[in-house]
Amino acid sequence: MPTADLNRQWIYAQRPSGAVGLEHFRLQETPVPVPGPGQALVRLRGLSVDPAQRAWMMTRTYRPQLQPGEVMAAFGIGEVMESNVPGLVPGDLVDGDLGWQDFALVTPESVRVRNRNESLEHLIGVLGITGLTAYFGLLDVGRPRSGETVLVSGAAGAVGCIAVQIARIAGCRVVAVAGGAEKCRWLVEELGVDAAVDYKAGNLREALKAACPRGVDVYFDNTGGEILEITLSLMNAHGRVACCGAVSQYNQADWGGGPSGVPGVLVAKRIRMEGFLVMDFYKQRKAAERTLSDWIRQGQLKPCMDIVEGLENAPQALIDLLRGANRGKMMVRIGTPD
Amino acid sequence: MPTADLNRQWIYAQRPSGAVGLEHFRLQETPVPVPGPGQALVRLRGLSVDPAQRAWMMTRTYRPQLQPGEVMAAFGIGEVMESNVPGLVPGDLVDGDLGWQDFALVTPESVRVRNRNESLEHLIGVLGITGLTAYFGLLDVGRPRSGETVLVSGAAGAVGCIAVQIARIAGCRVVAVAGGAEKCRWLVEELGVDAAVDYKAGNLREALKAACPRGVDVYFDNTGGEILEITLSLMNAHGRVACCGAVSQYNQADWGGGPSGVPGVLVAKRIRMEGFLVMDFYKQRKAAERTLSDWIRQGQLKPCMDIVEGLENAPQALIDLLRGANRGKMMVRIGTPD
Repeated sequence: MPTADLNRQWIYAQRPSGAVGLEHFRLQETPVPVPGPGQALVRLRGLSVDPAQRAWMMTRTYRPQLQPGEVMAAFGIGEVMESNVPGLVPGDLVDGDLGWQDFALVTPESVRVRNRNESLEHLIGVLGITGLTAYFGLLDVGRPRSGETVLVSGAAGAVGCIAVQIARIAGCRVVAVAGGAEKCRWLVEELGVDAAVDYKAGNLREALKAACPRGVDVYFDNTGGEILEITLSLMNAHGRVACCGAVSQYNQADWGGGPSGVPGVLVAKRIRMEGFLVMDFYKQRKAAERTLSDWIRQGQLKPCMDIVEGLENAPQALIDLLRGANRGKMMVRIGTPD
Repeated sequence: MPTADLNRQWIYAQRPSGAVGLEHFRLQETPVPVPGPGQALVRLRGLSVDPAQRAWMMTRTYRPQLQPGEVMAAFGIGEVMESNVPGLVPGDLVDGDLGWQDFALVTPESVRVRNRNESLEHLIGVLGITGLTAYFGLLDVGRPRSGETVLVSGAAGAVGCIAVQIARIAGCRVVAVAGGAEKCRWLVEELGVDAAVDYKAGNLREALKAACPRGVDVYFDNTGGEILEITLSLMNAHGRVACCGAVSQYNQADWGGGPSGVPGVLVAKRIRMEGFLVMDFYKQRKAAERTLSDWIRQGQLKPCMDIVEGLENAPQALIDLLRGANRGKMMVRIGTPD
């Protein structure tokens, strides 16, 4: 447990050449930092565990590549303890890139003040980046129409489990791809998808074909790789691929070849493949958060959470996430408020 | 030369396993067909030679796969000789999928009546599918803004040479990729591109990088393959790839692996990759034809034509096109009007 005057920090120690392991991080303890002018001190309460963290370790993405020696980057939520800046008041709940640590120094520009009436776990998950990613990716990039077939890979993951539910709310036939019979059963029985395909069960092409008898109109792609390649061949004319992530590629030293048929099949079927990042939709986030919150209250949308206790378990949580052990949004809960 | 009562037809004889050769076609002569009720007889005057013909031979695209024994499919233009249908009058100039032959039977639904005031060659090329493909692909799919960098592959080809000129008219910095120093010189000196890269000269990645110091905002892709893969790594955030064709893939038995980095790089840079076919834009074609025609008259747009004489040379023209021997729009001129 953290003590009042020490800040535990997980340092990104070494760039992985293959799968992420515990050896790529080390724990250090430093004094709790003192906020300077214009800064506030935040005590972390929760961390989001995201596949994108693997990409940050490996390469420049929408943020600079993480360098060994830096505190491991992570989206988190915490409470303002002290403030030297008007925009932030002790007791405020704020989120942002706070990192794997007990305490962080922030500025009003680096964080966003969140609504204390929502639960901490919902704010990290379904009302946070995860839920918004599913919302904007499916509705604004994929643009499904009622009656169309929507396929979602990584469907038992944080984003996928929300995306399948939004597609169902939009009146689509929803087909989920996940790893393992247990996840598939959960998707059908708990989240109401029309069919679920276990990509680990083999014969993936035939299974996807059987699950999508009228082809695929919108593919919400969390994985890339073989599932993407097969799905492109199953897509209908004017199909859309919302490229959300490529978790099949993150845990590799080299991204390797892309899906066969690109770009030929895109031309023949007039397919739009579009990558997106949730931050590009932040202007519309308040309305989206309200809609998601309403759906939860009305019982149409289940927030799917996979909670790990304690900052000390953050590296293992990321490792588990990258090997697909989670069901729903993985998050780390830190300590309790003073 | 055709005689009045014989119809020369090039038959698609055999599916190629590699490059297209003369052995995949055979010439036959049949009687000139007699139009039935609702039909008209058209005498071919010109044929468009298109990379897509290779795809039609190999696989189902937006049209059924060509079967050995059928007349080789081709877009062409011709004159109505006899008509049993009100919509078509002898003397009308019509175009459509008329095939490699001297005479074709058509219906009002299978052809379009064209403007006799434009030259036959312009109607086949810059005011035909080629010019419209460049127009809609660049402007409606690529959506360049003034000052952005537009890269066009296959730039010395039929579509590419129009696309680079429209990009220049749109106020963009235009970079062309073509095969050979001669084509590159022609693109710079005759068509006014800002830089031209010879993909056959080696060191393609460095050459493209040097030619696009501010990255690539819009890539008009006629080739797929290595140029696409490299260009994806050079694209700016929110870049757009208008997927027009994949000529690098048509002349192969198997399409092979796709570009590395798909979909990872699409996500990180929020790239939109979109395949298109000109026919999806036909509602807007009249306005586009007027604009293209105006640009030609004002001297802003050069129609770039590579003309082969005689139906007997159609197979060789396609073979030459597929190995990149043409400069501009390749077409076959047939006979002379009676």
